[in-house]
Amino acid sequence: MNWGILLTTAKPDHQTEREVLKATVEYAQVAERLGYSSGWVLEHHFTRYGICPDTIALAGYLLGQTETLNIGTAVTIAPLMHPIRLAESTALLDQLSDGRFHLGLGRGSFPADFEVFKVDPTRTQDSMRQGVDLMMKAWTEERVGAEGEEYSFAPVPVYPKPHTRPHPPVYVAGESPSTVEWAAQNGFPLLLQLGQQDEETRSRVELYNQYAELAGRDPDAVEHVLVCVGHVGATREEAKKEIFGLVKWWGEEGQRDGFGIEDLRQLPNYRYHLRRIEQAALEGRDDAESWISDWLDNNPVGTAEQCAERLNEIIEASGAKHVVLAMEGSGDVEVTKKNMERFATEVFPLVKA
Amino acid sequence: MNWGILLTTAKPDHQTEREVLKATVEYAQVAERLGYSSGWVLEHHFTRYGICPDTIALAGYLLGQTETLNIGTAVTIAPLMHPIRLAESTALLDQLSDGRFHLGLGRGSFPADFEVFKVDPTRTQDSMRQGVDLMMKAWTEERVGAEGEEYSFAPVPVYPKPHTRPHPPVYVAGESPSTVEWAAQNGFPLLLQLGQQDEETRSRVELYNQYAELAGRDPDAVEHVLVCVGHVGATREEAKKEIFGLVKWWGEEGQRDGFGIEDLRQLPNYRYHLRRIEQAALEGRDDAESWISDWLDNNPVGTAEQCAERLNEIIEASGAKHVVLAMEGSGDVEVTKKNMERFATEVFPLVKA
Repeated sequence: MNWGILLTTAKPDHQTEREVLKATVEYAQVAERLGYSSGWVLEHHFTRYGICPDTIALAGYLLGQTETLNIGTAVTIAPLMHPIRLAESTALLDQLSDGRFHLGLGRGSFPADFEVFKVDPTRTQDSMRQGVDLMMKAWTEERVGAEGEEYSFAPVPVYPKPHTRPHPPVYVAGESPSTVEWAAQNGFPLLLQLGQQDEETRSRVELYNQYAELAGRDPDAVEHVLVCVGHVGATREEAKKEIFGLVKWWGEEGQRDGFGIEDLRQLPNYRYHLRRIEQAALEGRDDAESWISDWLDNNPVGTAEQCAERLNEIIEASGAKHVVLAMEGSGDVEVTKKNMERFATEVFPLVKA
Repeated sequence: MNWGILLTTAKPDHQTEREVLKATVEYAQVAERLGYSSGWVLEHHFTRYGICPDTIALAGYLLGQTETLNIGTAVTIAPLMHPIRLAESTALLDQLSDGRFHLGLGRGSFPADFEVFKVDPTRTQDSMRQGVDLMMKAWTEERVGAEGEEYSFAPVPVYPKPHTRPHPPVYVAGESPSTVEWAAQNGFPLLLQLGQQDEETRSRVELYNQYAELAGRDPDAVEHVLVCVGHVGATREEAKKEIFGLVKWWGEEGQRDGFGIEDLRQLPNYRYHLRRIEQAALEGRDDAESWISDWLDNNPVGTAEQCAERLNEIIEASGAKHVVLAMEGSGDVEVTKKNMERFATEVFPLVKA
């Protein structure tokens, strides 16, 4: 079983940007000492939901500060960067870190990103898929050119080639069935976010497995990454209470700065996400406070034993072999480090997988 | 006096990409131990002239691997990246490294970059100047928006803000008089490349100083960076012979993959560079072999005493307070490290500045 930590770089009012970034470096170092196998950084722009705007830069620094910890991105927003640039930067970090850089891709879900960087949000699916094809060619072929709708240029040799052959690990944040299908067909493991119910995760992985088999791929060879919240406390109630305020703030920040219903209605390529929001409203699940309360109940939050029990269930449902925990919910650097330690010493030994 | 090393990441036939990149990291660590104050990384694409395609990623890793060494870029190709992204990434590295990241900007001079990344090479001057204005606003103002010809978007808050106030150090590679003028007016120090004659450097700095004074700035407060080749050997002839082959190869590689006369004729914004090439041809200085031979004679290449003597002259002519040496000319990792050591222990103590 691989354990990772999510380095959110969320910036609440009571912390400065500097404190958030310095704590992020410290968490990665502590995680390495405690035997975690990975740390994952996020890309966001123009929002305190996350103040890391460049996953490559932060990953580069963290790889330089660590020796064995893998640094992944969850996610790098693929449509915002030219795929050849992303292929180049990934290969560079892969070489420098001896393969410790793992690239997680997503399509983006914050409107200001597309507005500022002049990227068409209706084209994210095509640009990510055509982009990944180009990245694969850049990593494995001597020269790469393009004559596609999204990208076109005469063949060029791309330097450097990656150290990891045939290519560095690529993950895909897949929620919608069409992205799950595409990831499965191409053999990219998913970055899964734990939802309100394990059944949702189970169905998504089953769908992935079906598409993988149809494409002649072995689903058991794929190691998905499952992201959830983790917090150990004296009791379930106390643990939940310690992080509730910040998790709620984080959710609201994301809701305010991310695509809203009005945006999604204009984007046929985000139809699945619109339908989910509508469905939640129809079922009366659109109240932030109760949604977060229910969601936290489904995460490993509670005593060490309760956390281990939930992790066992989550792992059973998802088949995940790599669980990444968001552990900063207390909003306190020392409590977060203690939380990481308690998971490593008290919770993980109780997990069966 | 500040001393730096140029980390070219040039990839000749006898070294693998991996060897080049691993050696680059080692050079930075050795430089730090020897008391150099800076290492400078270069951005190139699709050419073995330099296999670092992402100065931010490489700088991030090197900053993570060092404790006191400043890492600069010489240069980051400004028109290839959205200025808000560059402002974000710079501020992030500035925060993580406590101000050890120095951003050097250039306009680009390799045609494939513009072709692949779909950037208009005729607009590089405007895009760099408007871009730098936006970067300054992103670093110092709460929100930044744009309504310019090159960039336009509604105001957004850019995170993170830099640690270094008012902003991280910005350098400009300035050869043409118009770029020198712009840099002087805005107070950006120049990244100067030593030419065939010290008089050229002297004139460029004098021009800078005149424009700085016209803009009400104190030229003496500006610390230009001067880049030259440095190699210590038993005699001047031997030192020159040891690096001649690789320096010649490097020049040819840059000439083959960079803008040629045909390209420059289409680009009014590179008129100065075209004129220089034409002038060299008129004066019979366009033979690579003899050009490089003459140029090396103007660089600190020779015995320790000869190198120190040349450095004293170069520093006198340019007024530079920061000299960055390209020291990899031997093409051998151990010889390069020894060369760095000899400059630190034998040459620098003889330099008067």
